[in-house]
This record gives sequence, structure tokens and C-alpha cells, in this order.
Amino acid sequence: VVGTITVLAYVTYQAFRKGKAPPSDLRVNLRIMKEASKVVNMVDIEDLGDKVSYCRCWRSKKFPICDGSHNKHNEDTGDNVGPLVLKRREPVAATK
Amino acid sequence: VVGTITVLAYVTYQAFRKGKAPPSDLRVNLRIMKEASKVVNMVDIEDLGDKVSYCRCWRSKKFPICDGSHNKHNEDTGDNVGPLVLKRREPVAATK
Ligand code: FES
Ligand code: FES
Repeated sequence: VVGTITVLAYVTYQAFRKGKAPPSDLRVNLRIMKEASKVVNMVDIEDLGDKVSYCRCWRSKKFPICDGSHNKHNEDTGDNVGPLVLKRREPVAATK
Repeated sequence: VVGTITVLAYVTYQAFRKGKAPPSDLRVNLRIMKEASKVVNMVDIEDLGDKVSYCRCWRSKKFPICDGSHNKHNEDTGDNVGPLVLKRREPVAATK
């Protein structure tokens, strides 16, 4: 019995310990590459075209590119996130 | 009395209505430019240096630039977000 109680106490302790910061509450990324410890995307500046939008809401189906999903996310949650837009002041004909 | 109950019912209804998507639960951006309906940052590609990291966790004190705050956010919440890194394959001496 004491052993059982000890195990239960330990399981409860672990549950509370993990419960301190419930992952579902404040995570920004709910679905993208959750197997990775950190999702960092590297882009070579030389490869950029005339204009591209990068997702910062983590809801895009084309992540890391923005597909407009931030709008639905903002409507659903009352949030106000949007993409990072990279564009050339002078479009380069060669990259079109 | 009926009027009071009606008002109470309406207030309760509104509370539930707004309660459908509790803003505090699934918002990605908790503090940055919350007065804006949508935070979009525009960057001219011609102005980029050899390397810069843009924040996608919305926790950076230098937003839209990453200041490393994603690491604390990931530790605190069990999340796995990180920046978008823009870099030149061939560093340009003039931009240093
Ligand atoms: S889809 Fe994520 S910022 Fe647009
Ligand atoms: S501080 Fe936000 S991604 Fe680094």
C-alpha cells in the first residue's frame, strides 16, 4: 500500500510539475514541425524575388511563406498578427 | 424585475458570445502594437545587410528583429518557435 501511494504521489507530482506551464495555453506554434526543438528558417538574400511574405502566425499551410491564414486566425481569436513582407524598391526584371 | 432579468440575460448572452473564442487562449501576439488591427512589417530587400533574423515568436523587445526571446518563450511554454534568418551567401563588403 505504501508503495502504491508513493507511486501515485510521484505521478501526481509529475503531473503538477508539467502542469506548471500548460503547453496548450501560450504556445505560438500549434502544428508546424513540432518534432523539431526549434523551427528556424534560413533564406539566402540572393534568392529573393521582387516580393515575398513570410508567415509569423504559424498557421500557414505554405509555411514559412504566408498564405493569408493570419486573417482567419485574427478573426477567430481576436489577435492582430500579420506577415513580414520583403520587397524590392526596384523590381529586377531577371527574377520575374 | 423583468427588465432587470432581461438586462442580466443580455449581459450574460454577450459574455458567452465573446467567450466563444477567448482572446487570451490562442492569440500569438500578446503585446506588440495591439492597437493595430494587423501588424505587417515591410522591408526593402535592398536595405538588407549580410545577415538579419526576424522575430516570429512576437516576444522580442526589438520586434520585428529577433533578440533571442524565443528561447525563453520555448522553455516557459514547451513551444518550438524560432526566427526567420535572412543571409547573404556572399557577404557584401559595402554593407558591413
Ligand atoms: S499566414 Fe501566417 S502571417 Fe500570413
Ligand atoms: S525573439 Fe522572437 S523569434 Fe527570436
